[in-house]
Amino acid sequence: MSKIAVLGTGNVGDTIGSKLIEVGHTVMMGSRTADNEKAKAFVAKHPGKASAGTFAEASAFGEIIFNCTAGMGSIEALEMAGEKNLNGKIIVDIANPLDFSKGMPPSLSIVNTNSLGEEIQKTFPQAKVVKALNTMWCGLMVNPMMLNGGDHSTFVSGNDTDAKEKVKEILKSFGWLDKNILDLGDITKSRGTEMYLPLWLSIYGATNNGAFNIKIVS
Amino acid sequence: MSKIAVLGTGNVGDTIGSKLIEVGHTVMMGSRTADNEKAKAFVAKHPGKASAGTFAEASAFGEIIFNCTAGMGSIEALEMAGEKNLNGKIIVDIANPLDFSKGMPPSLSIVNTNSLGEEIQKTFPQAKVVKALNTMWCGLMVNPMMLNGGDHSTFVSGNDTDAKEKVKEILKSFGWLDKNILDLGDITKSRGTEMYLPLWLSIYGATNNGAFNIKIVS
Repeated sequence: MSKIAVLGTGNVGDTIGSKLIEVGHTVMMGSRTADNEKAKAFVAKHPGKASAGTFAEASAFGEIIFNCTAGMGSIEALEMAGEKNLNGKIIVDIANPLDFSKGMPPSLSIVNTNSLGEEIQKTFPQAKVVKALNTMWCGLMVNPMMLNGGDHSTFVSGNDTDAKEKVKEILKSFGWLDKNILDLGDITKSRGTEMYLPLWLSIYGATNNGAFNIKIVS
Repeated sequence: MSKIAVLGTGNVGDTIGSKLIEVGHTVMMGSRTADNEKAKAFVAKHPGKASAGTFAEASAFGEIIFNCTAGMGSIEALEMAGEKNLNGKIIVDIANPLDFSKGMPPSLSIVNTNSLGEEIQKTFPQAKVVKALNTMWCGLMVNPMMLNGGDHSTFVSGNDTDAKEKVKEILKSFGWLDKNILDLGDITKSRGTEMYLPLWLSIYGATNNGAFNIKIVS
């Protein structure tokens, strides 16, 4: 079991952090300020298993870092975390660079020949960035068995094979079936999973149901 | 049964045109020049059911137009077809604006806040553009039953409801199950299906198998 930093106090951070604790890890939730109310509520829900602090404090604590911040602010959040607190560690990047500033639907602030996953890797070259779980609603990330007996697809990409293996183990502890975790390759493959978001949003809009995923059929 | 123009003489045009003939339509294949060798070979394969001509001749012939040209050249091809030959007709746009000019992987030449489907609709406002079938290998477009008993997903989007219904009927004649044809909404939803291509390419690269599709699981 590991000490894990969860950066971000929104629904995604709360959901991921709670699941990590459920499967046995200890979590420090990081936010911009040390006195974040949502982080305090998270700690109160998980006595003895959770703590809270700044992005830097959480990242210093964590052996693995989950980036659950909003994608548009992820680079700034990680810069506040501090390179020395990230070097050598796995950053599991589950964010999408969705830009809601011009209304709906959102566009992507990084797209096409680059991606947020790549940008994080370039900004922190000594960290091991693994893109994962960014293709679905957070409730499904941590409870894949809720749909189709768990038989649907999720993706990992990153430059470090050992780091991807460790992230796969975490995904399996969440309930993901090994056969449904597809390693797409290096971190440039983040482009595909991030650029899938407009289709995800269109399907959500057409069906009024966010609790769906895609399964690769071959 | 309809008179249908298939613009483009590549694998996609040949595959779509052959299937349209198989299910009972008459097809004129359009290309840049009237003496295209691939178009001649297509005509020879389908005696009495197929003809060939310029983009303009084929579009004048067709009651429905299938855009099977390479996405980077689709607007130019349709301009050669001529607005008067497209006005009031359904354009089934199955192209993707993939730019291979900078090597692999391709980027998208139109992306994020626009799409090829939208650009065609804006360029030919009196045509009824329906984006369809652009999310898979062409062999699967016309033979969905080859995978999982035909149980996987395909999408349509466009501004004209009747046009989308007509395209859905054609998809059903290809073997698509009604329950698996998802209407995403207006033509702006082309963005999602076109921006899915990088993920499609990544999955293809990771599995070495292009004969796959995604199924929405909910």
